[in-house]
Amino acid sequence: MLNTLSSTMHLNLLDNVAIARVEIPQGTVLPDRGVTAGQRIPRGHKMALKAIPQGEPILRYGQVIGFAKTDIAAGDHIHVHNCEIHAFARDHAFGVDAKPTDYIQPQATFQGIVRADGRVATRNYIGILTSVNCSAGTARYVAEAFRRNPFTGDQGLLADYPNIDGVVALTHKTGCGMAIAGDGMDTLRRTIAGYAEHVNFAAVLIIGLGCETNQIGPIMQSRGIQTGTKMATMVIQETGGARKTVEAGIAKVCELLPEANAVTRVTVPASHLNVALQCGGSDSFSGLTANPALGYASDLIVRHGGTVVLTETTEIYGAEHLLTRRAVSPAIGQKLLDRLSWWEDYTRRNGGEIDNNPSPGNKAGGLTNIVEKSLGAVAKAGTTNLVDVVGYAEPVTEKGLVIMDGPGFDPVSATGQIAGGCNVLCFTTGRGSVFGCKPTPSLKLATNTPLYDRQPDDMDINCGTIADGVETVEECGQRIFETILRIASGERTKSEEIGFGDDEFAPWQLGATV
Amino acid sequence: MLNTLSSTMHLNLLDNVAIARVEIPQGTVLPDRGVTAGQRIPRGHKMALKAIPQGEPILRYGQVIGFAKTDIAAGDHIHVHNCEIHAFARDHAFGVDAKPTDYIQPQATFQGIVRADGRVATRNYIGILTSVNCSAGTARYVAEAFRRNPFTGDQGLLADYPNIDGVVALTHKTGCGMAIAGDGMDTLRRTIAGYAEHVNFAAVLIIGLGCETNQIGPIMQSRGIQTGTKMATMVIQETGGARKTVEAGIAKVCELLPEANAVTRVTVPASHLNVALQCGGSDSFSGLTANPALGYASDLIVRHGGTVVLTETTEIYGAEHLLTRRAVSPAIGQKLLDRLSWWEDYTRRNGGEIDNNPSPGNKAGGLTNIVEKSLGAVAKAGTTNLVDVVGYAEPVTEKGLVIMDGPGFDPVSATGQIAGGCNVLCFTTGRGSVFGCKPTPSLKLATNTPLYDRQPDDMDINCGTIADGVETVEECGQRIFETILRIASGERTKSEEIGFGDDEFAPWQLGATV
Ligand SMILES: [Ca+2]
Ligand SMILES: [Ca+2]
Ligand SMILES: [Ca+2]
Ligand SMILES: [Ca+2]
Ligand SMILES: [Ca+2]
Repeated sequence: MLNTLSSTMHLNLLDNVAIARVEIPQGTVLPDRGVTAGQRIPRGHKMALKAIPQGEPILRYGQVIGFAKTDIAAGDHIHVHNCEIHAFARDHAFGVDAKPTDYIQPQATFQGIVRADGRVATRNYIGILTSVNCSAGTARYVAEAFRRNPFTGDQGLLADYPNIDGVVALTHKTGCGMAIAGDGMDTLRRTIAGYAEHVNFAAVLIIGLGCETNQIGPIMQSRGIQTGTKMATMVIQETGGARKTVEAGIAKVCELLPEANAVTRVTVPASHLNVALQCGGSDSFSGLTANPALGYASDLIVRHGGTVVLTETTEIYGAEHLLTRRAVSPAIGQKLLDRLSWWEDYTRRNGGEIDNNPSPGNKAGGLTNIVEKSLGAVAKAGTTNLVDVVGYAEPVTEKGLVIMDGPGFDPVSATGQIAGGCNVLCFTTGRGSVFGCKPTPSLKLATNTPLYDRQPDDMDINCGTIADGVETVEECGQRIFETILRIASGERTKSEEIGFGDDEFAPWQLGATV
Repeated sequence: MLNTLSSTMHLNLLDNVAIARVEIPQGTVLPDRGVTAGQRIPRGHKMALKAIPQGEPILRYGQVIGFAKTDIAAGDHIHVHNCEIHAFARDHAFGVDAKPTDYIQPQATFQGIVRADGRVATRNYIGILTSVNCSAGTARYVAEAFRRNPFTGDQGLLADYPNIDGVVALTHKTGCGMAIAGDGMDTLRRTIAGYAEHVNFAAVLIIGLGCETNQIGPIMQSRGIQTGTKMATMVIQETGGARKTVEAGIAKVCELLPEANAVTRVTVPASHLNVALQCGGSDSFSGLTANPALGYASDLIVRHGGTVVLTETTEIYGAEHLLTRRAVSPAIGQKLLDRLSWWEDYTRRNGGEIDNNPSPGNKAGGLTNIVEKSLGAVAKAGTTNLVDVVGYAEPVTEKGLVIMDGPGFDPVSATGQIAGGCNVLCFTTGRGSVFGCKPTPSLKLATNTPLYDRQPDDMDINCGTIADGVETVEECGQRIFETILRIASGERTKSEEIGFGDDEFAPWQLGATV
């Protein structure tokens, strides 16, 4: 904790600016920063922490958000009048800012569940998946027989299986009335296959109708999945209809319970963390508190050998050149640019646009340009090298910071990350999300204290402390990291206590419904 | 019932062809048709019932599927060698085949629930709707407290309310990460508003998150819906989070129960039937048995003053000129052509195509051209005038045969029809659907007897009797009509006995997820 309430926020140790937590009158002495305000600094705006000669970079989130247009004195207000972006902003200069990762020893640890193949789970669910909406009701009834409901007190059939976190039906609204090949089908198959193989599932049952376009066979083949004692399939039209399939499904899950329950947690290194980064319901604090604090925690995860997965490509737009400069190879930098090009074409074809330029309201709030705005979202990924760029729902195999292509809409976006293998999810929110996403625990990080106080049953961590001036970004980030380790070890998130996470499975729909 | 097993099917009284139920050797005498087979007639193929001079129309489903290319004798095999389509096929000739409806008196009746505004319900549910996926989990938990589960025996909180068919949460996967205006948003709003106003809901609670693109206010305004004793809304971010909203939602529904339970069924004319027509999992029998039999029932419904709603625009393609010829005005004929043009553009933009031409397999099965193929799907709409064409999920207000634009995918398609006000749904299936769609009862019509025997818990009506030769199309259609009246009066369908219909609510997604 800070000894005194600070009137500014310093978002990264590399930054040569601080952000005014409250309006700072001209001439105010800031003892904790060692500067005096040269002009009035409106709330949320930037102040120079040291002299920045003309042409030198201005750093926020540890990233270049522009260059001094004139000589800037320590304590000066920095905004559009003295900060410019120039050709640098379009210079993707693959890898020029990549640097060796500063690994931490000894590695932090958590209590994980080690599967037979060596992968480490943070939860232990049984999953009921579907190929098509037509089998969703059947899947729901199979899961419902085992469902614990904290509101009604129902316990389902899991009373004797305390090590099973739940039996969850993750259903969707598509799977037929679509082209049999192409991006739409590939994406759906990849998503379902990714869940079928998710480490947090002890066992999986996939239920299909029979005549759907999205057949179970090709889902399995897309990732070389074999049926076996932990992977079962059922087809309603081959099982005598819905009622018989529900009964057979319940019986099948009952068979799976003893082995699924036979797990113990053991000490494993933090390198087994694969953390999905999300934001939703953002507000003007998101880029000031929760996102940079999560970014600090992201750096710790990577420095302990783990992985963090940034997505929401539409919100990266405008800051991509900073990520390509951190790419470990030109090929990986190019992959990111290729995805951005795809999005420009896709949104144009659909009559929309990617345009993340700061609005007049954003500028009044202190955001100087599109780089700074997008960096507010990207801040949650921290400052380490970009080690890979993968497509939506593709397996994440590299250690370090990985970008997964995908939209910004929370459930669709998180579904891709979990299909890719993420075993913890961190979700920053300013307006108040109630997001859960079985089988992966979802930590909610409030960007402001009033939200944390207003939704105590949904928020896991208050990052409003930074704006309140009672905690630094680093202190808050350290606290996030420690919480992630506890959650990964089995401590339940708020959304898990409520039992949320059945309804947020939302594969990205590409292509026409016909 | 027929006295003898017939070897052919006569699908409409106007038809000058019959369809071979089994392969008919050359020279076979067909006493029930009064003809002798002039050539071998393969199973599923057409045989002339009387002489058809060159240039005269060939009628199937009571519709022109082509013209005699040569003089055709009674008993001749009719296929591509002697049946041609020409300019007629592209002549939309608005209204030339419209004819006065042959109304039946006295009108048939059913036992319906008359609402305060005079509309007639067939079921009495309480609906929990959502603006966005982010409130889906909350809606689910509210409904779950009241849920009867036939597999677990749970009774929920409805034990004292026998006149309430259920409390159902109809949730979806979208509502944010989408353009705030345009077709995508309009379609979603219209769909949710249509359900909010559905006659089969005694009361509705709409739950939102708070910061979503698809706000509750504009949903309500889109159809002038007012909150009141039967229409409540809740916003999670204004209610203190998910847990408090679930608790408040359960309390709100408890308040609604006594009034919702206070309904009685009274005798009402069949003109209050608004029947959604669907097919899914079609097979080669669909166009021979269930679809024409449902078409006969459709004609009875219209002749008793009611409404039938055909949709699945992509399956109308190729037979649209026959529907425009039955249009009651040029404007309505043109509306159908405009929707077909939209689809051509839409599928092209999305890299697909509308191409319903018979495949070699279709031709081997006896389908001569695209008109005949599409008519197999359209046959379920019967032969009355086309009185209106409406957009997806738009209110259906006319009596008679109405076309609603929409895709062929069952859940999406049926969701549009129910949003439009349909209070019964008839679903023909050859492969075996298990479709339910609360709050509207879903009747399943098997196209073949093996399916009916294989899925007895899902199929309501066997139309395979027609192919078996033990019932005529008219007899089966009459039986469907009588079953619809019983179901509308409260008798439960097979999918209602299982409790299906919570998961099939699937608003059509148009536009990009971003
Ligand atoms: Ca976001
Ligand atoms: Ca998001
Ligand atoms: Ca229950
Ligand atoms: Ca169909
Ligand atoms: Ca269909």
